[in-house]
Amino acid sequence: PPAWDRASRPPPSPLQPPGLPLAPCRSFSNNKIQVELNESSGVAMMKFKSPPVNSLSLEFLTEFSISLEKLENDRACRGVIITSAVPKIFSSGLDITEMCGKSMEHYTEFWRAVQEMWLRLYGSSMVTVAAVNGSSPAGGCLIALSCDYRIMAENPKFSIGLNEAQLGIVAPFWFKDTFVNVVGHRIAERSLQLGSLHPAPEAHKLGIVDELVPEEKLMEKAAAVMAQWLALPDHARQLTKTMMRKAVLDRLEAHREEDIKNFITFVSKESIQKSLRMYMEMLKKRK
Amino acid sequence: PPAWDRASRPPPSPLQPPGLPLAPCRSFSNNKIQVELNESSGVAMMKFKSPPVNSLSLEFLTEFSISLEKLENDRACRGVIITSAVPKIFSSGLDITEMCGKSMEHYTEFWRAVQEMWLRLYGSSMVTVAAVNGSSPAGGCLIALSCDYRIMAENPKFSIGLNEAQLGIVAPFWFKDTFVNVVGHRIAERSLQLGSLHPAPEAHKLGIVDELVPEEKLMEKAAAVMAQWLALPDHARQLTKTMMRKAVLDRLEAHREEDIKNFITFVSKESIQKSLRMYMEMLKKRK
Amino acid sequence: PPAWDRASRPPPSPLQPPGLPLAPCRSFSNNKIQVELNESSGVAMMKFKSPPVNSLSLEFLTEFSISLEKLENDRACRGVIITSAVPKIFSSGLDITEMCGKSMEHYTEFWRAVQEMWLRLYGSSMVTVAAVNGSSPAGGCLIALSCDYRIMAENPKFSIGLNEAQLGIVAPFWFKDTFVNVVGHRIAERSLQLGSLHPAPEAHKLGIVDELVPEEKLMEKAAAVMAQWLALPDHARQLTKTMMRKAVLDRLEAHREEDIKNFITFVSKESIQKSLRMYMEMLKKRK
Repeated sequence: PPAWDRASRPPPSPLQPPGLPLAPCRSFSNNKIQVELNESSGVAMMKFKSPPVNSLSLEFLTEFSISLEKLENDRACRGVIITSAVPKIFSSGLDITEMCGKSMEHYTEFWRAVQEMWLRLYGSSMVTVAAVNGSSPAGGCLIALSCDYRIMAENPKFSIGLNEAQLGIVAPFWFKDTFVNVVGHRIAERSLQLGSLHPAPEAHKLGIVDELVPEEKLMEKAAAVMAQWLALPDHARQLTKTMMRKAVLDRLEAHREEDIKNFITFVSKESIQKSLRMYMEMLKKRK
Repeated sequence: PPAWDRASRPPPSPLQPPGLPLAPCRSFSNNKIQVELNESSGVAMMKFKSPPVNSLSLEFLTEFSISLEKLENDRACRGVIITSAVPKIFSSGLDITEMCGKSMEHYTEFWRAVQEMWLRLYGSSMVTVAAVNGSSPAGGCLIALSCDYRIMAENPKFSIGLNEAQLGIVAPFWFKDTFVNVVGHRIAERSLQLGSLHPAPEAHKLGIVDELVPEEKLMEKAAAVMAQWLALPDHARQLTKTMMRKAVLDRLEAHREEDIKNFITFVSKESIQKSLRMYMEMLKKRK
Repeated sequence: PPAWDRASRPPPSPLQPPGLPLAPCRSFSNNKIQVELNESSGVAMMKFKSPPVNSLSLEFLTEFSISLEKLENDRACRGVIITSAVPKIFSSGLDITEMCGKSMEHYTEFWRAVQEMWLRLYGSSMVTVAAVNGSSPAGGCLIALSCDYRIMAENPKFSIGLNEAQLGIVAPFWFKDTFVNVVGHRIAERSLQLGSLHPAPEAHKLGIVDELVPEEKLMEKAAAVMAQWLALPDHARQLTKTMMRKAVLDRLEAHREEDIKNFITFVSKESIQKSLRMYMEMLKKRK
């Protein structure tokens, strides 16, 4: 398991010139996600660094959940900005290799990790801002949708959406619930059925992301938005967030084992295995 | 009951010139609805042809449900375009003569047929596209709202809406649920209370229809939209559609008998009978 | 309790000049709310006149509920326009002095009065139009949201919103439900978490109010909107309104005592008492 790397925290400097804020930072040294907590602002930066496409493997998801848990339990942390360290991609979504030719035990473990990640992120008491600096299909889109606010680089080559239907698979009900909470029933119904990947300007128009900014302004904007949200007293904001999201979180909690069984039944079908293998072949050829 | 008219299917022609696609068609010969299935595209065209206003009589509703069932069970059919063969009107909604001065048994049979039509259409596993080429009040609007996509002729003289309240009657809860799923709670609340009939441009702005096109481009556009939806693998699209619509479908299924009783109680009131008779008189004078 | 002041009703005048409509009016003589019912139009005008800011004290809420009940039971009354007689403010929301340093019994009585007001207003069978002629935070916003239609003076200095989170408190679930029914889940989630007070133009853009008009046209517009809604037959409109709002009304009815307990627990906390006292100090200094 990843551990706090307290060594990276700069020692207090008596020579700190006035006006230059001392920024005491703690960072995690992880394999796939880099986390840096600025203790003076209370804001952590989470950067996905799992090239080539930040796919959500079991290892990635586990690191993600553990990182969120650590930050959640750290009184110095009040908000998280989530972004990618890999150019042009935020996250490509669930790692298909985890769903191909593996054992039932593996599928169970994998799906539980997907659920766990979402329960922690959607239910986080911290302010969560997604700085979407690349394409973000399927599970990548879910991560963005689960944050409190979404800013996307205005590059029309970047797209975002729950495109599962394109691959012949179905987004789980809690992906759908999260999507409906953001864009409403009609837009979700159409987008999910078509498995649409929306270019950034269209995603903004549909309300999938809250704001578009030039790529070079993305982190600056994310920090400004975070400051605006952190201006509120934590306790009232957290209770309000819980009130808004509880129904949808409770629904997965209540049907978690059933949802795992559904996933296993689905992914075990020969037809699904075949289409996933074909999709992987296609991805390999693209490289 | 209407029957497949397989005689209309063109025989395979060995002389078919290259480039001109053979379009094997099967059509129903019905009284009120004309159905033509293009077996090469998998798309059926349903045309309401019950002049003067395609009102939803018991006979019309029965034909509609049977036609949908046949297409649903036909492996050659993947999508349906629904439109009108009567100029200027898509459908005027429920046939008021079925609700005036009839027996309890008749009201029961009629209302069950209305429910049946909606359950089949809203729950259809086929792609359903409404090509709204005329006005579409009340039950006519419900048919459009129950499809996967709505294209309307951009003629501002054509209007659409659930205008039941204007006639002194109340849209059933499942009309309301369908409406809310398309336009959201606020727009539905206001439009239903006012019994609004929205001219095409306003209907588009409110999200009641997805797209406006010049009348002469309507069928072309409907075919293009259908092709886009049929590009998706059926199975994943169908499961996704079910996931989005199941809650609302289940609600009527669970309360079907109660809903019939409500209708009978309501329609049996002397005050309601009186206002329906007045409305019919007004319609007769208009002609 | 306030009583009908039938003395203010003008006697029928045989000398009434033609063209000048006789407007038989009845008015309540209350302390905090002025009510005038025009019997010929069936429209009552309710004006909040509790300077400086029309705060919702126990006395104000009680008068409000009693006034609504009287109008509801008066066959001559079909609609109510709600506005303020105090310049620049519609209502400042719940009276904080009722929540500070009082007994459990008082908190219980106060909260029950807040619930009662909302249950009567949101569930009213009359047409309710809010003519928002000033700022309208928190409980003031709830009153506007609970009406059938909201018109706001287009002055950008006037703002509206459920800003409870700014004061370190949490809007109750039924404030949230009412808000979600008007603006949808996403806008409500963001606005409630940030405790936003939206200037009139932004409130209009978000759908919090239906229309903006110049301040001097506000009452004229409210009367025109009311006439449009009253053109519908009452019975069908009322049943439709109930169908749209019942789920949310029932939710409070079912959890009313629990909601009172939650309020008392919350408001009794020393930290909450402290922040409310600080807020009151700030308000006093402003004057």
